Amino acid sequence: MTLFACALGLGTMNGKGEWLEVFYPQPHIRPDDQAVTELARVCGYDLKKGGNRVIQLHAEQRTALKTLSDTALARCGNSARPVVATFLATDAAPASVPEVYLKLHLLSHRLVKPHGLDLTGIFKILPNVAWTSKGAIDVAELAEACLAARLKGEALEVTSVDKFPRMTDYVVPAGVRVADAARVRLGAYLGAGTTVMQEGFVNYNAGTEGPNMVEGRISAGVFVGAGSDLGGGCSTMGTLSGGGSIVISVGKNCLIGANAGLGIPLGDDCTIESGLYLTAGSKVKVMSRDKVVKGTVKAAELSGKSGLVFRRNSQDGSIECLPNKGAIELNLDLHANN
Amino acid sequence: MTLFACALGLGTMNGKGEWLEVFYPQPHIRPDDQAVTELARVCGYDLKKGGNRVIQLHAEQRTALKTLSDTALARCGNSARPVVATFLATDAAPASVPEVYLKLHLLSHRLVKPHGLDLTGIFKILPNVAWTSKGAIDVAELAEACLAARLKGEALEVTSVDKFPRMTDYVVPAGVRVADAARVRLGAYLGAGTTVMQEGFVNYNAGTEGPNMVEGRISAGVFVGAGSDLGGGCSTMGTLSGGGSIVISVGKNCLIGANAGLGIPLGDDCTIESGLYLTAGSKVKVMSRDKVVKGTVKAAELSGKSGLVFRRNSQDGSIECLPNKGAIELNLDLHANN
Amino acid sequence: MTLFACALGLGTMNGKGEWLEVFYPQPHIRPDDQAVTELARVCGYDLKKGGNRVIQLHAEQRTALKTLSDTALARCGNSARPVVATFLATDAAPASVPEVYLKLHLLSHRLVKPHGLDLTGIFKILPNVAWTSKGAIDVAELAEACLAARLKGEALEVTSVDKFPRMTDYVVPAGVRVADAARVRLGAYLGAGTTVMQEGFVNYNAGTEGPNMVEGRISAGVFVGAGSDLGGGCSTMGTLSGGGSIVISVGKNCLIGANAGLGIPLGDDCTIESGLYLTAGSKVKVMSRDKVVKGTVKAAELSGKSGLVFRRNSQDGSIECLPNKGAIELNLDLHANN
Repeated sequence: MTLFACALGLGTMNGKGEWLEVFYPQPHIRPDDQAVTELARVCGYDLKKGGNRVIQLHAEQRTALKTLSDTALARCGNSARPVVATFLATDAAPASVPEVYLKLHLLSHRLVKPHGLDLTGIFKILPNVAWTSKGAIDVAELAEACLAARLKGEALEVTSVDKFPRMTDYVVPAGVRVADAARVRLGAYLGAGTTVMQEGFVNYNAGTEGPNMVEGRISAGVFVGAGSDLGGGCSTMGTLSGGGSIVISVGKNCLIGANAGLGIPLGDDCTIESGLYLTAGSKVKVMSRDKVVKGTVKAAELSGKSGLVFRRNSQDGSIECLPNKGAIELNLDLHANN
Repeated sequence: MTLFACALGLGTMNGKGEWLEVFYPQPHIRPDDQAVTELARVCGYDLKKGGNRVIQLHAEQRTALKTLSDTALARCGNSARPVVATFLATDAAPASVPEVYLKLHLLSHRLVKPHGLDLTGIFKILPNVAWTSKGAIDVAELAEACLAARLKGEALEVTSVDKFPRMTDYVVPAGVRVADAARVRLGAYLGAGTTVMQEGFVNYNAGTEGPNMVEGRISAGVFVGAGSDLGGGCSTMGTLSGGGSIVISVGKNCLIGANAGLGIPLGDDCTIESGLYLTAGSKVKVMSRDKVVKGTVKAAELSGKSGLVFRRNSQDGSIECLPNKGAIELNLDLHANN
Repeated sequence: MTLFACALGLGTMNGKGEWLEVFYPQPHIRPDDQAVTELARVCGYDLKKGGNRVIQLHAEQRTALKTLSDTALARCGNSARPVVATFLATDAAPASVPEVYLKLHLLSHRLVKPHGLDLTGIFKILPNVAWTSKGAIDVAELAEACLAARLKGEALEVTSVDKFPRMTDYVVPAGVRVADAARVRLGAYLGAGTTVMQEGFVNYNAGTEGPNMVEGRISAGVFVGAGSDLGGGCSTMGTLSGGGSIVISVGKNCLIGANAGLGIPLGDDCTIESGLYLTAGSKVKVMSRDKVVKGTVKAAELSGKSGLVFRRNSQDGSIECLPNKGAIELNLDLHANN
């Protein structure tokens, strides 16, 4: 049988022997090669029987790793850190830290797109970790680590205390820039040609098709189509807190202006004027290209439509929707039952 | 007598022997135990005479520390860094770097709430420090340190040049997450259950009661009640620059929308729509639940009131205030003289 | 002849011997002293012949450096990293990484103001670099470096993947604070007395005259006059993406409110209300001090004018422009042909 995914990882454990995080240098999706067969044999994973299993390698297995023909796998036999082999026969909801980390790696390695994986329950599984200049430390063990470092005259930098690490410490996919690595979580999907500026942000299970310029915030679950730019400080409403249950997306070649916001999914070729926050409940005056008002609708009713410009009239404060340059005018009747 | 606060710290000095920063692993408020009596004796602090004193321990005192029954104190006798004992008989305005750092620790350890300490003059006392991968460096000595590191082929990372360090390098209180540690200054108060996302920010002498989701900016002096969420990029007006003299606060169970802003203190159960900046001078149409206009007032007059929803009408651009779901309607007459 | 600029630098190369970055401890503009003559001689640069040249020093030249009378130059003879001497006879468009880095240093050392240098084509010249706790690493070599570090049980922190490094790792000019160093790129110009808070941002070839409080974003090319404050999360429209071709600037003693935005150049003593995004195309009601409407113009027509307050009327949603306190009223007729 072909596995859903598998990988060999190097991880960090706390003092109780619990996983804090796992780094998988080469995660595989639907692997079907000799290397995986060999790895399964060394780790005692039965490819015929299947099942989702996380196997921490003991000394003998680590020695056996060194004999594998795949040099990357063989090198892991010499790891100074715990080594784990994670075999996922299916994309079932993850049950352990190594499984969650494998799935986050699959996203950031662009092997699966956002919404393509079962991530049910990951907040409960992932421990809160102190990410430091000496690696991952259990928050319960942090105070002691800080004191010990100080007593030796060393600096222990704690750059984050969070369930998710920054993506770039695990994977940097080809053709991307991430100006401030603190702003992109592991599990983000950044398409080739994506630049995330200092003010950009990309949560896990979210991202860009590429190429894209991201100076705004891409909330969990949001996916942005090719050629779309998110202006500085703009917001896409998430579903984790505050936002509703609508999953936001942005089509191709859209422009969300600086400090703007988006509470509905957008089609292609749409523009939201800088500074305008378009919530699902905003009442929008739909206008023709020659500025004749054709009706007023809730923004939610324009979800997924293409070729629209949204702006706030600077003289009367109303929110207007006009056809974008070159776009076909919206026929409100046609879309009335969408 | 009972001291106001005291602690034993490990610090960093510049080339002139001036304090740059102090780390207090276990700050005490109103301490009254044997450990403090012992520490005072070793340091030559007269508990009867009192006074606010900062004592840098000389070699003999550091050796004496090792004999103390409190193991945490005893360990500091072996510090590779300068050791300082800070005794505050009263909460007088701080006069030295070790005193300011002790007060900032008290806040972040949740031993005192924001506005609970005299912090007069701390900007003048705190030196501007380069926070680097090798610890705190005096900005006047930074260029030499950079050159020396480069000549040795090392990287010296300068992550901040500021009077305040990030909180997480000093203390991580239980039950909090801070996704990007650069965004929370030492002296912030984060209640249990607080998550500060990448776009969140918390200044010193400010914070959350907990639990809270913070994706916006909590300016110096601002305190946010339990259960309130600050949406991505939202702003609370500070009093240090730009803002006025009104101290902003947010009550319990409020929701400040993404990219919104707040120039007045809010009561409980209030909502500010995403994208709306409510300044103290904004004129607000107060409406009943069935949308009858009851009058127009300056937002400042609604300071501290509970159960309000603020939004900008998307058709006529006016700012409206309605009762929140389940809240009692505002009686403008009742509050006329507040 | 006097050179345009020159400096001796310590750099990092990738495995192919290509420059990733160069650190110049003491860049010189229009240097005319003995030290430069000596340096040119050691490096084989003909001061009479001129030309823009980048000379990587071989072993013999590095040994010769140690004999120079300038002690800073002499110390570079002992560098563990590649040493480069960059001589710019003229401010021609840069042709190599060391030339670009020298120009970015000139800006951040405040030797040249933004727009004062030819930076044509720098995006094509600068490689995308992984900025890590072990220094600059070629992105193509990063995966191997991450694996190698993990195998040794070390943490390799990748704090940025970008063409530009953070300024503070190269230079911290006197009298500035930069709360989160990730937010200021090398090539930023920060005048004395500038504080860049956590939410501030300054791109290359942009900056402040000083003193200034920066809690908003200064896009590439934007310059802010003395005494002006940029509120939290405010935006200045850039010309690199999204924005138009107008170069934005801010005069002296302006206040851009929190979460506001600016799409036109401002004169002196202007205020933009918190939350208002003023685009070039916004229609603005120009009013007298006693609130008589004098006309309506596009914001672009008010470019560069002084003494204006911009705000959105909270009752009718229109954008208004009034004279600032103490400012002379705007005479629309007078400026009609500007």
